Parts: sequence; C-alpha cells; structure tokens
Amino acid sequence: MKSILVLGAGLSSSSLIRYLLKQSEIYDWKIRITDQDIDKVKAKINNHPNGIALNFDALSSSERRPEIEHADLVISMLPANFHVEVAKDCIEFKTNLVTPSYVSPEMKALDEAAKNAGIIIMNEVGVDPGIDHMSAMKIIDSIKDKNGQIDCFKSFCGGLIAPESDDNPWNYKFTWNPRNVVLAGSGGAAKFIRNGQYKYIPYHQLFSRLDYLSVEGYGDFTGYANRDSLSYRSIYGLEDIPTIYRGTLRRPDFCEAWNVFVQLGMTDDSYTLSNMERCSPRDFLNTYLPYHPTQLVEDKFKQFLGEDNMHLYSKFEWLGLFDSDENLEVTSPTPAKLLQVILERKWDLHKNDKDMLVMIHEFEYTLNGRSHTITSSMVNIGEDQVYTSMSNTVGLPVGMSAKLIMNNQISNRGVLLPIKKEIYEPILAELAEYHIEFIEKHS
Amino acid sequence: MKSILVLGAGLSSSSLIRYLLKQSEIYDWKIRITDQDIDKVKAKINNHPNGIALNFDALSSSERRPEIEHADLVISMLPANFHVEVAKDCIEFKTNLVTPSYVSPEMKALDEAAKNAGIIIMNEVGVDPGIDHMSAMKIIDSIKDKNGQIDCFKSFCGGLIAPESDDNPWNYKFTWNPRNVVLAGSGGAAKFIRNGQYKYIPYHQLFSRLDYLSVEGYGDFTGYANRDSLSYRSIYGLEDIPTIYRGTLRRPDFCEAWNVFVQLGMTDDSYTLSNMERCSPRDFLNTYLPYHPTQLVEDKFKQFLGEDNMHLYSKFEWLGLFDSDENLEVTSPTPAKLLQVILERKWDLHKNDKDMLVMIHEFEYTLNGRSHTITSSMVNIGEDQVYTSMSNTVGLPVGMSAKLIMNNQISNRGVLLPIKKEIYEPILAELAEYHIEFIEKHS
Repeated sequence: MKSILVLGAGLSSSSLIRYLLKQSEIYDWKIRITDQDIDKVKAKINNHPNGIALNFDALSSSERRPEIEHADLVISMLPANFHVEVAKDCIEFKTNLVTPSYVSPEMKALDEAAKNAGIIIMNEVGVDPGIDHMSAMKIIDSIKDKNGQIDCFKSFCGGLIAPESDDNPWNYKFTWNPRNVVLAGSGGAAKFIRNGQYKYIPYHQLFSRLDYLSVEGYGDFTGYANRDSLSYRSIYGLEDIPTIYRGTLRRPDFCEAWNVFVQLGMTDDSYTLSNMERCSPRDFLNTYLPYHPTQLVEDKFKQFLGEDNMHLYSKFEWLGLFDSDENLEVTSPTPAKLLQVILERKWDLHKNDKDMLVMIHEFEYTLNGRSHTITSSMVNIGEDQVYTSMSNTVGLPVGMSAKLIMNNQISNRGVLLPIKKEIYEPILAELAEYHIEFIEKHS
Repeated sequence: MKSILVLGAGLSSSSLIRYLLKQSEIYDWKIRITDQDIDKVKAKINNHPNGIALNFDALSSSERRPEIEHADLVISMLPANFHVEVAKDCIEFKTNLVTPSYVSPEMKALDEAAKNAGIIIMNEVGVDPGIDHMSAMKIIDSIKDKNGQIDCFKSFCGGLIAPESDDNPWNYKFTWNPRNVVLAGSGGAAKFIRNGQYKYIPYHQLFSRLDYLSVEGYGDFTGYANRDSLSYRSIYGLEDIPTIYRGTLRRPDFCEAWNVFVQLGMTDDSYTLSNMERCSPRDFLNTYLPYHPTQLVEDKFKQFLGEDNMHLYSKFEWLGLFDSDENLEVTSPTPAKLLQVILERKWDLHKNDKDMLVMIHEFEYTLNGRSHTITSSMVNIGEDQVYTSMSNTVGLPVGMSAKLIMNNQISNRGVLLPIKKEIYEPILAELAEYHIEFIEKHS
C-alpha cells in the first residue's frame, strides 16, 4: 500500500484530511498524520481504517526523516518557514512534497536538486495562493491560445463572513488569523502597474484608494491593494502587461472605517506603549487623540472623523472603543496587539457562523482589434466551523494536487506552482464538484 | 605645553578650531588636528603658531592610539558611531574626551571605567543636544532652588535660514544634512506626555499636529513633535512632570506643505522604486497619484491637495515638481532619495546666505500656590558659510567644555552630560559673549 504523510493537523488541515481519507478508499492509500496534539489527529481521522494517527515532532529532523523516507508523498501543513527543511529531506529520500505556501527564495533554490531527484515539490496550491493561480491561468491560457493580447488583469480575494451570519455593523468577523488582519498592508507600500505606469500606495493611503465591485447574488464589495502585484507578471507569463493589480475584498464601508484606525496609528506593531499593560479601550484611543482639558474622548474622536465620515461613528461605538473599564490586559502592548484584543471580543465567530471566500478576476484583452472583457468570480460558503470555506478552499486543492502526483499525472519535476494546464485543469474540474466554481461573464 | 587633539575638521569643526586656537594663546596649548583632507585642516589653522595639521587616519586604531596617549584632551568630531572606540583608547591612556553627540548605550556602559581612570567623557555638548540641556537645566535648577514645582516643559529647536537670506516660498533651505531633513520623524511614532496622559503621534500625522510659536523680532514658527520627549524626564530630573514635549521648528506653512509629501508617500526610504533610475520629477510625483486616462498630473495633484490646502500649490510648482524633463538620476532610487535630489536643487544655500538657529523653552511652574511661566528663547544667526550658526552653536560649547576640563574646573568624572551647574553656568555665560544668548520672559 502506498502512503501519504501529512505534517500538521491544525485548522486548515480538516478538509484536506477528510478528502485524503475518502480518496484512500479508491486508491488504497495509507494516510499517516502527525501533530503535537494526537487527539486532534484522531478526531480528524474519525476511526477511518486508512488513517494512522501519529504523534512525532515534525520539527525534529531525527523524528521526521524516517517517516519521510518511507512515504510516497509528504504534505506539509506546517508554518511556512519549516517547509524548506522538510523539502531537503524529501529531496534526499526522493519523496514528493506538497505545500500550500508561497515559494520562498530558499525553496526556489532547491529546484535543480528536486529535478535531479526526480521529484515534485508543489507549492502555492491552496486558495490564495493556489486557486487564484489556477483560475487565472485557465483564462490567461485560453486568451493566449486565441492569440489575444491581455491588456489588464485585476484580481481580488477576500475571506469574509457568510451573508447568513453577517450580523454586525462592520460586516466582518475573524475567519482567519486576526493578527494578519490587523497588520494587513503594513510595513511597506503597495505596488502595481496601471496602463504602463508604476504606482505605489503608502500604507497610510491604502484604505482610501479603493476599488468597488459586486458579485451577482452576493452584493457589493470594496477592494484595497495587496502589497506586491508586480511579481505576478513573471509567474503568469504576462511580463509586458500594462495593468496588473491584486487586491483584498471587504464589504462596503469596512475599509473606510478601518482607515480611521490606520490614520490614528492604532494598527502599528513596531513599538510598545508605556503604562498600557492594563488599560481601557478609551485610554488606548485617547493616546492617539490630541490633548484637550475638557473635551470628551467621543467629541475628540468625532472631530478626528470629520463630517464626511460621521456615518462610520456607530461602528466604533459598537466595538466598545469608548468603554472606560480597564479591561485590556496585554503584556508588552503594541497598538496592534491592543486593537486585536478589542476586535477579537466583537469579531469572533458565533457557534453556527459560516465563513465565505470570494474571488474575482477581471480581464481586458484585445482580439482581432476588438476589446473584450472576462469577469470570473467564485463565492464559496463554509459548511460549519470545522469544514470552513477557508479549510475547504485550502485543503481540497492541496489534496487534489497530491492525488495527481500519486497517480503520476504530472509530467514536470522540480519546485512547481499549479500554473500548467496538466495541473490546473483537473483540479479546477474536481473543485467544481465541491461547489468551488468560477462563473465567467464574457463581453 | 599641554595639547588638545581634535579628530575631524569637517564643516562643524570650523568654529571649534577657531575658538581653540584663540584660547591656546592664553593657556599655552598646542592644538593638534587631523583629517583625511590635510588641506582642510591647514585652511582652518590658517598659519596659527599653536595649530598643528595632521593627516593620520583617526579611524585606524594603530594610528590614533599614539596620538591619544600623548594628548591631554581629545575632541572627537567624527561620525557618532566612532566615539566609543575613541573613548576606550582615552580610558586606557587616561585622556579626557569631549564629543557633541548623544550618549549611546555602549558609551554609557563605559561610565565606571572612565571614573576608575579618573577621566571625563563629556557628551551632548553641542547645540541640540547641548545648549538645549544647559539652558533648560539653568531654569529647572532655578525653579527647584525656590521649591517651585514644574508642571509643563515644552522645548523647540530649529536650524533655519536667516531672515535676510529667506527668499523662497518654503522659507527653508538646507543648512544641515539634507537626508536627515527628508527622513525627519520617519521610522516610528513620536511620544510625549501631556497632563499625565501619554500621547503618540504616528509619522503620517506628525506634520498635521502642530504648535504655533513666535519670537519677538523674528516672527512666527510652527513646531512638530520630536520622536522621543519622554527620555528627557530622567535626564533633567523631572520624572513626575505631567507635560513634557520637544519639537522641531519650521516657518509657518512649511509643515503643512511637507505633510503633502508625507501623505503621498514620497519621503519613504524603505524600498527602491522600479524603473526610476532615470525619471522626471513629474514621473516621480505621478507614481503616487491615482491613474487617470486624461487628467493632467497638475490636476490630480490639486485634487489630492484639496481646497483647504490649495494655497500651498505654488510651493510645489516652485520646486519644479511638475517638470517633465527626465533629469533625476539616482541609483537604487528610494522615494526619499529622489525627493532629496529635487529639494537640493532648490533649497541649496547661495553664496552669501546665512543660517539661523532658533531655540525656545516654555516652562509652567507652581510656586507658593501660584502659577508662573518662563519663556526662554535664543536666536543666533551665522557669520557666513564657514562660521555658520550651526558651526558656532555646536563648536563653541564643545570648545568651552574642553577649556573647563583642561583648566580642572569640573569636579565630576565619568561619562557626563552638561547638566550640572559647574558646567552649564560658565559655558552659558561665555556663549553670551558670542551672542548665543537666551532671553527670558517671566510671568
């Protein structure tokens, strides 16, 4: 019997493990899964006869290597910085590897060694990166096949709350790592190219330079720019494209309100606040408002908002930003850490809440002297709080690419992305069976 | 004959060397001065019989040590990061040392060793830091001597252009390191305390939270917050002061206009721009403005400015920001580097221009239940482009503290700041003879 080794059984592995166990019935695989918490593994295996719960430390080279040596394929769901060590073992033992994470420069450097070992190291095969690559390349290849010229490619993705669970004034809850949401876009300018002109947006302007989009049946969204849209030109073979832009989706008014935190300086994670180990949300807010001998914090905040943004005020009130109970306790508090605690109290998922993944691609291309557009959009809603949309859209393509490799259906070797037809075509087709499906509109 | 060794004969050493040579006639000193450029040293010595021009490399330990061994006092005018190595040599050879620079943690750590060697390492004895410490401590000590309680201390300093040379719409020229001016305030939030409340201002708000001041006979100024006002509490023995704030002075409207560059993102030095090794100011500006198929860069910029700031438009026009000649050539161009080149073309000093140093302290204190204020201000104008105000206000207190040490008039040993009466009193008195003088107003 062939075997697949899964390293890590955290939140995003749920759908992957369920998928692999199901496929194991057809292909006669053993699925060996390790995690620090063996109960988590056992719960996800749920007594399936092909699942084997392990408890070895995937970060320990000596514990990991014998397991990799005897596996036919490894799936690393570890934090991204551990993939390279795993990849080196995989090269030594000629074992294929799949990870959902971005290719690091160190990983890229292993390409030649992986080719020489005759193995595949498949990366960026979750949702973003992953499904974005596959769904984009499908359209890019189809336009290129017709000898069309792509003039503009804009792509947006967002992890949001499903409409049926959307019950707060921010139209947002944490369906993903809260810290990443608080720090989103910080630490550098966003860069993209528009009609041949390079454009940079500094962090403090990011949430005021917005795109407005909508998806039929799912309403309106706004998009803010991702850090680096330019590197996608070479990945997608679009070196000379005049416009390429990638963004993150939120519901209307979210970005305008989030921008208030950015403008105040409350999303900064680069320094620790003095005397704020224990404080109230009101104290924290007041730290960023000018001193006034008599004015209330509420009034100073309204003055900061300005009349144009006064419609956003109730969002901040709802967050409890003006509460004067000293109930924030954070060690070495940075502004970002304090803000995260305030938000986590309000943006946490309720027991029956479902998440939603939205992806939108917009293409403009020229064919035989005429302009055309393609809009391709995908909306996926989670099943529950285990098989979330995030878990499904990350785990399923990871599992499907593992299946392709196990069944010898990928001809390339080395450090790969899912950008070739032989990879994205079968995966997109199979994803559609799981209702992860793009709707294309041509004009 | 006793000797003083001066390391470095750059711009800020001119007034120091002139002062030391003059004093050497009274005290019978030899002034030994080294610089990479011996012609610069010779020009500054100007055939004075007590001056000896040297050409050894002050950064080379083997060349420097014999000179330090035979000197009675060393003045390091080297870049700040070299002072610690010099200080270690001084401790070994029991030679006193003076530097105008901030005490680094490494320098502070030498305190015990300096005390054991029986030497003085005097730091922060230029203008800012230096004259600010001395003039503030004079007032602080006088209030404390009367058992007054200091409630508020605000202090401002600015290196500006003298009124007679102030002939551009920014009312500003580079009288100091241009790169430091472009990057001023970046890289962190400004922190201070106001009526017991800690306040933080993020960089992108720094130039819109301003203080408005004026000095009789010299007109109006605005001040923006310095990075760290809090550390001055312990230096000045004001641990419990409710309000302490330090700021930098500019002429009115400068900060409002500079804020436009900050808001656009054009002062960032953290990343390199693609395809901008050769570009026009217009291209550079357009990189930070939203794309528009037909609108002119001027119109997009006006839209960014908004009606409230339209009066600033002519300042940017005067800078040549809309010029489309591709005459900016910068290798590895960061936004800050490109902006600096644009500014240097316009903010350079003309042959007969003079600089101006402005310092303002504002104190509020309570004495016998009554509130009082003291405003202390100093304005100093440079002589010419060699003996600038910057050179005079840095070099003279350095030289005067060297004289105090040479004449055994300082009782303390170790790593010192000029905050004790025995140091600041004689120096402030002597500075007044050079028209570097504070005017106090009490109420």
